[in-house]
Amino acid sequence: MITNDVEDEGDLPGKLKEEKKEEFKHRQRRQSLGGQKAPMRPRRESTTSTGSWSSYTGSSSDEEATNPKEKEQSNSKGCSDFCVHNVAQAAFGRREIEIAQQEMPGLMALRKRAQADKPLSGAKVVGCTHITAQTAVLIETLSALGAQVRWAACNIYSTQNEVAAALAEAGFAIFAWKGESEADFWWCIEKCISADSWQPNMILDDGGDATHLMLKKYPAMFSLVKGIVEESVTGVHRLYQLSKSGKLTVPAMNVNDSVTKTKFDNLYSCRESILDALKRTTDVMFGGKQVVVCGYGEVGKGCCAALKGLGAIVNVTEIDPICALQACMDGFRVVKMSEIARTTDLIITCTGNKSVVTREHMDRMKNGCIVANMGHSNTEIDVNSLRTADLTWERVRSQVDHIIWPDGKRIILLAEGRLVNLSCSSIPSFVVSITSATQALALIELYNAPAGRYKQDVYLLPKKMDEYVASLHLSSFDAHLTELSDEQAKYLGLSKAGPFKPNYYRY
Amino acid sequence: MITNDVEDEGDLPGKLKEEKKEEFKHRQRRQSLGGQKAPMRPRRESTTSTGSWSSYTGSSSDEEATNPKEKEQSNSKGCSDFCVHNVAQAAFGRREIEIAQQEMPGLMALRKRAQADKPLSGAKVVGCTHITAQTAVLIETLSALGAQVRWAACNIYSTQNEVAAALAEAGFAIFAWKGESEADFWWCIEKCISADSWQPNMILDDGGDATHLMLKKYPAMFSLVKGIVEESVTGVHRLYQLSKSGKLTVPAMNVNDSVTKTKFDNLYSCRESILDALKRTTDVMFGGKQVVVCGYGEVGKGCCAALKGLGAIVNVTEIDPICALQACMDGFRVVKMSEIARTTDLIITCTGNKSVVTREHMDRMKNGCIVANMGHSNTEIDVNSLRTADLTWERVRSQVDHIIWPDGKRIILLAEGRLVNLSCSSIPSFVVSITSATQALALIELYNAPAGRYKQDVYLLPKKMDEYVASLHLSSFDAHLTELSDEQAKYLGLSKAGPFKPNYYRY
Amino acid sequence: MITNDVEDEGDLPGKLKEEKKEEFKHRQRRQSLGGQKAPMRPRRESTTSTGSWSSYTGSSSDEEATNPKEKEQSNSKGCSDFCVHNVAQAAFGRREIEIAQQEMPGLMALRKRAQADKPLSGAKVVGCTHITAQTAVLIETLSALGAQVRWAACNIYSTQNEVAAALAEAGFAIFAWKGESEADFWWCIEKCISADSWQPNMILDDGGDATHLMLKKYPAMFSLVKGIVEESVTGVHRLYQLSKSGKLTVPAMNVNDSVTKTKFDNLYSCRESILDALKRTTDVMFGGKQVVVCGYGEVGKGCCAALKGLGAIVNVTEIDPICALQACMDGFRVVKMSEIARTTDLIITCTGNKSVVTREHMDRMKNGCIVANMGHSNTEIDVNSLRTADLTWERVRSQVDHIIWPDGKRIILLAEGRLVNLSCSSIPSFVVSITSATQALALIELYNAPAGRYKQDVYLLPKKMDEYVASLHLSSFDAHLTELSDEQAKYLGLSKAGPFKPNYYRY
Amino acid sequence: MITNDVEDEGDLPGKLKEEKKEEFKHRQRRQSLGGQKAPMRPRRESTTSTGSWSSYTGSSSDEEATNPKEKEQSNSKGCSDFCVHNVAQAAFGRREIEIAQQEMPGLMALRKRAQADKPLSGAKVVGCTHITAQTAVLIETLSALGAQVRWAACNIYSTQNEVAAALAEAGFAIFAWKGESEADFWWCIEKCISADSWQPNMILDDGGDATHLMLKKYPAMFSLVKGIVEESVTGVHRLYQLSKSGKLTVPAMNVNDSVTKTKFDNLYSCRESILDALKRTTDVMFGGKQVVVCGYGEVGKGCCAALKGLGAIVNVTEIDPICALQACMDGFRVVKMSEIARTTDLIITCTGNKSVVTREHMDRMKNGCIVANMGHSNTEIDVNSLRTADLTWERVRSQVDHIIWPDGKRIILLAEGRLVNLSCSSIPSFVVSITSATQALALIELYNAPAGRYKQDVYLLPKKMDEYVASLHLSSFDAHLTELSDEQAKYLGLSKAGPFKPNYYRY
Repeated sequence: MITNDVEDEGDLPGKLKEEKKEEFKHRQRRQSLGGQKAPMRPRRESTTSTGSWSSYTGSSSDEEATNPKEKEQSNSKGCSDFCVHNVAQAAFGRREIEIAQQEMPGLMALRKRAQADKPLSGAKVVGCTHITAQTAVLIETLSALGAQVRWAACNIYSTQNEVAAALAEAGFAIFAWKGESEADFWWCIEKCISADSWQPNMILDDGGDATHLMLKKYPAMFSLVKGIVEESVTGVHRLYQLSKSGKLTVPAMNVNDSVTKTKFDNLYSCRESILDALKRTTDVMFGGKQVVVCGYGEVGKGCCAALKGLGAIVNVTEIDPICALQACMDGFRVVKMSEIARTTDLIITCTGNKSVVTREHMDRMKNGCIVANMGHSNTEIDVNSLRTADLTWERVRSQVDHIIWPDGKRIILLAEGRLVNLSCSSIPSFVVSITSATQALALIELYNAPAGRYKQDVYLLPKKMDEYVASLHLSSFDAHLTELSDEQAKYLGLSKAGPFKPNYYRY
Repeated sequence: MITNDVEDEGDLPGKLKEEKKEEFKHRQRRQSLGGQKAPMRPRRESTTSTGSWSSYTGSSSDEEATNPKEKEQSNSKGCSDFCVHNVAQAAFGRREIEIAQQEMPGLMALRKRAQADKPLSGAKVVGCTHITAQTAVLIETLSALGAQVRWAACNIYSTQNEVAAALAEAGFAIFAWKGESEADFWWCIEKCISADSWQPNMILDDGGDATHLMLKKYPAMFSLVKGIVEESVTGVHRLYQLSKSGKLTVPAMNVNDSVTKTKFDNLYSCRESILDALKRTTDVMFGGKQVVVCGYGEVGKGCCAALKGLGAIVNVTEIDPICALQACMDGFRVVKMSEIARTTDLIITCTGNKSVVTREHMDRMKNGCIVANMGHSNTEIDVNSLRTADLTWERVRSQVDHIIWPDGKRIILLAEGRLVNLSCSSIPSFVVSITSATQALALIELYNAPAGRYKQDVYLLPKKMDEYVASLHLSSFDAHLTELSDEQAKYLGLSKAGPFKPNYYRY
Repeated sequence: MITNDVEDEGDLPGKLKEEKKEEFKHRQRRQSLGGQKAPMRPRRESTTSTGSWSSYTGSSSDEEATNPKEKEQSNSKGCSDFCVHNVAQAAFGRREIEIAQQEMPGLMALRKRAQADKPLSGAKVVGCTHITAQTAVLIETLSALGAQVRWAACNIYSTQNEVAAALAEAGFAIFAWKGESEADFWWCIEKCISADSWQPNMILDDGGDATHLMLKKYPAMFSLVKGIVEESVTGVHRLYQLSKSGKLTVPAMNVNDSVTKTKFDNLYSCRESILDALKRTTDVMFGGKQVVVCGYGEVGKGCCAALKGLGAIVNVTEIDPICALQACMDGFRVVKMSEIARTTDLIITCTGNKSVVTREHMDRMKNGCIVANMGHSNTEIDVNSLRTADLTWERVRSQVDHIIWPDGKRIILLAEGRLVNLSCSSIPSFVVSITSATQALALIELYNAPAGRYKQDVYLLPKKMDEYVASLHLSSFDAHLTELSDEQAKYLGLSKAGPFKPNYYRY
Repeated sequence: MITNDVEDEGDLPGKLKEEKKEEFKHRQRRQSLGGQKAPMRPRRESTTSTGSWSSYTGSSSDEEATNPKEKEQSNSKGCSDFCVHNVAQAAFGRREIEIAQQEMPGLMALRKRAQADKPLSGAKVVGCTHITAQTAVLIETLSALGAQVRWAACNIYSTQNEVAAALAEAGFAIFAWKGESEADFWWCIEKCISADSWQPNMILDDGGDATHLMLKKYPAMFSLVKGIVEESVTGVHRLYQLSKSGKLTVPAMNVNDSVTKTKFDNLYSCRESILDALKRTTDVMFGGKQVVVCGYGEVGKGCCAALKGLGAIVNVTEIDPICALQACMDGFRVVKMSEIARTTDLIITCTGNKSVVTREHMDRMKNGCIVANMGHSNTEIDVNSLRTADLTWERVRSQVDHIIWPDGKRIILLAEGRLVNLSCSSIPSFVVSITSATQALALIELYNAPAGRYKQDVYLLPKKMDEYVASLHLSSFDAHLTELSDEQAKYLGLSKAGPFKPNYYRY
């Protein structure tokens, strides 16, 4: 169903084109390109894989500036098949990994349940993702399930050096550090693809770079790959294009759009991170505040519920009458920004659209209005329109700018219009656990699928696997599922093991 | 997509088979067969079309028992092409219709916007639905849009006689009264299908009886029909079966599963009616009560939110790990019935399943526990298991039975296990307005579609029409939609007029 | 503290004067004079003692109209010291009493705990309250604790005849029926005060009529009374006046203002009954509705919370800046009625004030606006201003009038401006249980107090007893209190048995 | 009423004695002694006056360690009547003050409304409070109203040096820096009391140190003071003791217990800060978490509401049956800690009691349980019991310790058991604005009261002033108060200007 979708597209919408351009200009910002699921397209950059490093304060300033490629390092067992900032930081990274494990019940349960089976025995995985404590839990889980891995970063800035060190110390072939150059970036990925006596048979990608590098430079190797797992909007989009042009010779799994992951990335995670991001940056009191939330998709629903719960008066802007009607039924006034800008204390964009907050709106806002983006990329607030001679920018804290109008009015802009949930709060490990478990299961599914089940196309995770990911996380809530009796299963026409809903079911 | 669904079914699940049997045994109870959408199947009996007659107290007891077929009646203009209980009751019915109009903004807006166009000009509609004040608003809207109609009841008990009288007085060919016999029932439908100089070209059906009667007895007439609009689970299912067996020679529209209708029938309506039904029957105080809601689909979500909002402590049972995880994230404990039955004050079933509450559970419940069904049909609570010699039934109020155990323990059973939202509360006209507007738009779409757009198959309402139904209801909330700018539409790859979401979007 | 209050008043405020006048004009409406606690004065008519008879449908119409005084009746044991409508209705009444017992854990627990002690042994109580199933549970509890009682109705219309019959059958000296004349009313009370070999020593009053009759006609008997328990605003006010003028020769307990009772009468009860009353009368859908709640005291807080929880958009009017600020912090816009009348769907008054909704406001309201009073008496909505020649009243259902403006606009007025929670919904027995337990404890306290503890004055229930009432109701929620350790009690300077808070504590 | 309270006390409860001892041992920790209002006593340490400096990162490390007393500084106008860390930091402090002004509408409105009157003209105020941006707004407001002031810190660590610099630069006689020694502390206060041609006539105190120093060392000066305004539990308690022993020769105002301040310090502020404190320290996801909140006073109510709103499952422990019943009605299970410790993810204490969480409880807790104190002082969690040889403490982040059991179980202890809302989150300026406006009005009231209105005693702020403080803050919510008509005021027996409620009203 998804696969056909792309066929009709003909031309790419402007949105993905613009992002693509942006991506190659400023690869280092990719984490902020992500954002929540665009309402219109099921593919997305992952937000969750960026992890919670925002609450981690590395102290790299006092360290030597030598390029890791030029250092000779080996871990305590003498192995040196890795390249990280400083393997001596392993202990600190290991503790971060252990803390992350406590909030990642899905992967830990998977490790426990499947360790005997070793369903990834024989799998040789090239991984290319953000390198965080949560990713480390994923990597070590894959290893526990039998896989061999080689891993690089999908972003030149997002690597937690201590975590990379801990992985290297544990014997993993890890090639990543914070602050890679463009050349370093490709060098690291290449080290994962091509190595002595190493024929990879699986790719776990976030953005599509490992996939595309292998396809271009190592086509023979690529043709032997059994499957690709991709979690970002951009990466998924590139796969659909490959598929359309007939170049995708390998089955691929789009894990970006599995139900469980989407709900956690958007509704549940944002419901908490909007509060966190606003408090950390502005110490604002929510009670009694007039708020406008732009867009009533999953992200908007989460933001609205959280703010209403704390006594804010929330209004919504929407273009889609169905979502607008939902906002009405949930107790929110549906307004146009132009009607309400003048009396609003707090504006949050969650649309996936561009220029939702314009200079004209901001000209009307009252003194002290806070403007923040929870939606997509950095396009929702027209920040460029604020870079004019008549306005003064004043950085008052990290991630907080006052934009000062000639009459002294101040608008408080957060994270320069980038995603505040990524820039100004952390992502709970539990959210990442959902994503990571989904990735691991997609690997297992593709690796073990009987020949012919998957063709050279892009697939969504089977619903049964989506349900399995959810079930892996229930125990941490001490939740007890009810089992269907035989009679009930027959009555409903269902298997007792699921799947329990048709594909079009709206959770 | 939906159409393919049925193909794979091979055998019907036991659920629909059982219902079918039940339906022919007790046609008069069809309204209660309905219930909310079964989580597993998109087709359903309509709940909404049964309207709010529960709050209406007819006084038929003192009236003569003459069969309307044997009476000679004509309205004030001399027309006698109708058959109702007593056309003299028209004034009272007219007032009920006027009250309903105030809460049916969708139809009233449609009347206003499309009256000039007369998009149903030339349409000759056979209607077969519940006959309530809300239906009357629909019928008069179709007429205002240019249609000619003949209308019968889809249920032998649900007709509001005064409303039927008002329609007859207004000149409509209406054939329905409360308490029809089986023979009357078919006679009425036949009067709508077959009449002098009347070749119907559209069918608006609720349950499929008009469709099937015409197909069987008037196949030639049927072959000239342009389209069928069907809103019930059962009717839709019968259409899919016709389609499968190649007998569906006419395009049909399944309005049961349009997004807007589904959300209102289930989530929004049940959120309010659970409270209403419980208060009207038991005067129970919600604050502090221990509640179990079985099933966390849309109906369960609505019940949970409403009860939590009033200070109840709500637990959930689920078979589906994804829904269970949602319940956790919304703050509900996920338990098994057997763990919790002993300490619970109130149990509400919303599953679409059978025997969710068993005799064994009820044996464990504490004195005074209230048991109610909001889900589907009358199967969720195993009421038959309570009809044993050791238990005493005591009817304490209308719709309220005390089941008394030998030790004096009482369980309070509502509506004998049938749907309490239908039996013990009323459906707000606003909810019916959504359904009716959807039906009207489906008629317009099928009637005006260019040849070839719809084949001899069953279709879902196009998303754009779903969005249109929503938009028709926004004005009653004074909600103001935002319009996309040209630039934004291009960026998103959308038309400014919608549809705004892909088909698989989860609202 | 309360006692001094009255001293400073000098003149009565107009409010109580007006009510007083109203009371003697229309004694039969006393239940509707009640209402929630006026924000300004702690005394009030009881709402709760009126019980849930609204959900009870008596069938007195077909019964003979003989005045009970003229009938000769005796119960099955041959006793005839009572006067009720028809003692043969006892069985039905008994069942209602049994149902009420299930929701009155406080009294039932008291019965159990104190039955051995018989703390009311020797007490001879004249009772004068509404006669409902809940009152019967109170009466039988007093009896179980050792008291002898004689009981009359405090209202000529509120007696549930079947319950009175059940009490008579059980041997109680009960004198009350529905539809007493003024003369009957006083005759019944007198039968309770004066009887052979009966010197009452306690009075339990609701409105002060038993107290005043005894004081006037039987002053010698009155002087031997040990204590009075009074629960209504009016009755309490009359006691304060007696006290001021030196005529109160007996200690009296004001149970109207105990913390627990007040919270349940106002916040917790109204939070539910506002929904119930609106649904039963109008079937309105709450989601998305624009609401104005006038007054943000306990009643207003309850109404606001309930409606917000179901998706209404709630605005508040207030005169008191502290309450207004609370409304802001709870997420409600604070507005003036004149600003918002035009766009509102639903207006609820909860102020204790008069003319909060004026004709001018109603002239501005939009078609279909619902207006209801939850506050006090029937003064909050200026209903008289609607009785003008230009407006048409149309009774559409019981308790629902459409007021029709010349241009066709309809305002929907509930209960003619009287309290909708009393007129259009029922009071849960649990709420009455709190009040009744408070009354019973006040009787026990006054009856058993050592000489000198209470003087000839009006007292509030000691906080420790208030806490005891609360504790009696905890078990029905399976709530487990924590006990202070010795060390903790010392640290806090508290007794382990309470009271736990100072008198001025704001719960 | 409050004044009498103390009379009966005879012996101080252990609580205040322990605190007193603690205070003199560790004066520097006074901010954390504060905490929310102890349920049992109306007096308290102020939480709000500590302001939001936790979100401010001073950079004192690189500065010289010279004692400010030994530096010679003068501001740009040549004035040197102050002693601060470094007057050159004034610009940064000024910006912080300007930001604070935006969230302190009460003081800003007071400044505007009363600037013409200069109600403090002639007032000579000795101030002794925390020195923060919010205090600066208060100081400058007092000055704008006509007062002369000299100001010292009430805490040796809480001064924001940059703010003190800005005040010095603006010409205020400010004597305070971060990190004063005990000797410095008293020196600074003395500089404010005694100066050339300075006879103070008002004291604004937080903790009572300025009051007591003046009383002891400058009794003649003290006797000329017109009034004292005190906001802390400790300071108020000391005043009551002075009063009892006949040494209070001056009227004093207890602003700690005014309604508005109390609600904001406790309910509204804690509702937000509990979330903030937990997120900043642990990044925990709230959805689905099992929580125990100990104590259901205002602080507990705020914590419960906030966490429930985000999907946590909240249980409550209580000793007081009235509060316990409220918890039930609000939808929380009331449990004992021993029953629930084993399955809880998050424990929050809000009791004002000691040893609410014991070692025994913590021995039972599950791995990863977070324990935090929102209540009072550092006594609620028995932290000392964790300092045993068998447990390992690991500091994982600032304010976050892992306590590790021999079997590897980790308990996550926040802020070593001190108040997390003070230690780990910031207090919104809006909350401080309420407190500061209350202080300013108390000064105005005492300074302008006609002779005889206030005697040598401790008073609560008149309700009318409490209402005025609330009204000053309404405009920031664009809230519109309704005014009583003459007729309504007469009906209610109220003045149109308030006060609107009796003293015992429970908001």
